[in-house]
Amino acid sequence: MRQVNIGLLGCGTVGQGFVRLIERERERIRVRDGVDLRVRRILVRDIQKERTGIDRSLLTTNAIEVIDDCDLLVELIGGVHSAGAYVRRALRDGRDVVTANKALLAESGRELFAAASASGARIGFEASVCGGIPIIRAIERGLAGDSIESLTGILNGTCNYILTRMEERGLDFATALRLAQDRGFAEADSTLDVTGMDALQKLQILAELAFGSSHVRTKVHGIDDISRQEIEQARSRRCVVRHVATARRLPGGAELRVERRELPESHPLASVRDENNAVIIRAKAVGEMLFVGKGAGSLPTAAAVLSDVIEISRAEARVYTGENLT
Amino acid sequence: MRQVNIGLLGCGTVGQGFVRLIERERERIRVRDGVDLRVRRILVRDIQKERTGIDRSLLTTNAIEVIDDCDLLVELIGGVHSAGAYVRRALRDGRDVVTANKALLAESGRELFAAASASGARIGFEASVCGGIPIIRAIERGLAGDSIESLTGILNGTCNYILTRMEERGLDFATALRLAQDRGFAEADSTLDVTGMDALQKLQILAELAFGSSHVRTKVHGIDDISRQEIEQARSRRCVVRHVATARRLPGGAELRVERRELPESHPLASVRDENNAVIIRAKAVGEMLFVGKGAGSLPTAAAVLSDVIEISRAEARVYTGENLT
Repeated sequence: MRQVNIGLLGCGTVGQGFVRLIERERERIRVRDGVDLRVRRILVRDIQKERTGIDRSLLTTNAIEVIDDCDLLVELIGGVHSAGAYVRRALRDGRDVVTANKALLAESGRELFAAASASGARIGFEASVCGGIPIIRAIERGLAGDSIESLTGILNGTCNYILTRMEERGLDFATALRLAQDRGFAEADSTLDVTGMDALQKLQILAELAFGSSHVRTKVHGIDDISRQEIEQARSRRCVVRHVATARRLPGGAELRVERRELPESHPLASVRDENNAVIIRAKAVGEMLFVGKGAGSLPTAAAVLSDVIEISRAEARVYTGENLT
Repeated sequence: MRQVNIGLLGCGTVGQGFVRLIERERERIRVRDGVDLRVRRILVRDIQKERTGIDRSLLTTNAIEVIDDCDLLVELIGGVHSAGAYVRRALRDGRDVVTANKALLAESGRELFAAASASGARIGFEASVCGGIPIIRAIERGLAGDSIESLTGILNGTCNYILTRMEERGLDFATALRLAQDRGFAEADSTLDVTGMDALQKLQILAELAFGSSHVRTKVHGIDDISRQEIEQARSRRCVVRHVATARRLPGGAELRVERRELPESHPLASVRDENNAVIIRAKAVGEMLFVGKGAGSLPTAAAVLSDVIEISRAEARVYTGENLT
């Protein structure tokens, strides 16, 4: 059995979920996928911090140690500067990388994929968009035989949580935001979420996969200036307000929009509540498809990361043992 | 560029859709995936039959010619006897196979996968369940890192079309069935559909992937004895009737049920109308996910077949050129 040594950058909510999920699923993965996954080192800022169920002897503050000592790097620290440098170092040496970092991919995706291709490494990024929903695989492979015309979705769970709380309980924006923060659905600094920039980054990743277009026009409007009245007026028309991200193929390019939209109650996105995410894909042959699921949270995101780790490790194992199979 | 010669068994609705889709998408697939897909031979019963847009010189009534002369076999004739023999022959010689044949997989899946594994061939079967919805990939890979607890879905588009027509237009079963047949959503012999056996076969495939269980308890109830009254009574309780397939993990096995269920209007499956399919997956880490899309039809099914052809061909291409990449 092939052992895969995982270097983990970051041990916050998702990182801890990932370590626990590997513990829980290890045996099943050994049997089903023929790979033995081991978290070898974990990069943290503060080794002393309390992290339930995490073996402290794995922790280090030295990133190079984590990167250079692994077969596969899982990047969960976020941000673009350090994360980008670490990922580049791993890819340069031909190490596979799995990341949930949509900001990094939206900013440097092409460069990173070129680096991976040059060294023979692979990049998994299912967790970067829509948490546990396998939307990257659906677009990249499930629809490989079809031409995608548009993507429409709710890509930010924080905004959707805020909007559905305002709708159900008549809260104003600031109160609903605080509630989201208390419940752990929003960061202390929620600017990227409520301005729509987080949704735009995710939409960029999906649009790049779906259209591969380089000429992109974008328009972003957040939810931070929404009033109770706007939601009440929508309700009086049997409609709801959702923060909707839309990518449409245009001749020679694509148009990306993130904006509030008033949707009739019968619209498939109207029933998407709380921190859920959803994507409607419209493709030429397949028609319209809808995917709904938890877009964020420790375990859903960790499960998406782990699915990439397994698929990359399994593919490696297959290549290595190819001679025995044929 | 690697050229992949495809042998196609069957040129009915899905087969013709597949040939047309390859024509339309060929150039995009060459550029994006680096493989050149060619349909080399097509097995038909009657060469003289009119098939718009199909090059008659590709047609043959000799299956062996099609199988032995291809890199990858696409099986779209259905049924278990001839189809099974042809698929076994291809796999024995190490040829990859893509099939939409749920009956064959439900009956002989394990044996076929063992044959594929022995010869180094691969089997793609995304099209066998839920047409264009990439549900096989979602379960097999998107959720590889998670433990699936249950699957609940509408797996037969014909039944759903009939039930929603009865509901909307107050038709009785026989009239709604004829309408489905007129519209091409039901075969002349719709027994497998309306008795629930078709849904059960699809559920078996999904459950095998999700649970891998060998001790399976099944219960099937069709829609062929449904009355207008049953649907009207449900409506009076603000409910709808859907033909629901459910697979639940049990200790050491699984329970599969296909049956009519009365669902409240707010249930995610209640809004699934016409020939659409839907699956709700409940998994430990990810929670609940919903997938909805066209479950049948020429182009959606052809697109699922083509996505498997591309993925298998691309993987082969990667293995063949591996030395250049590393």
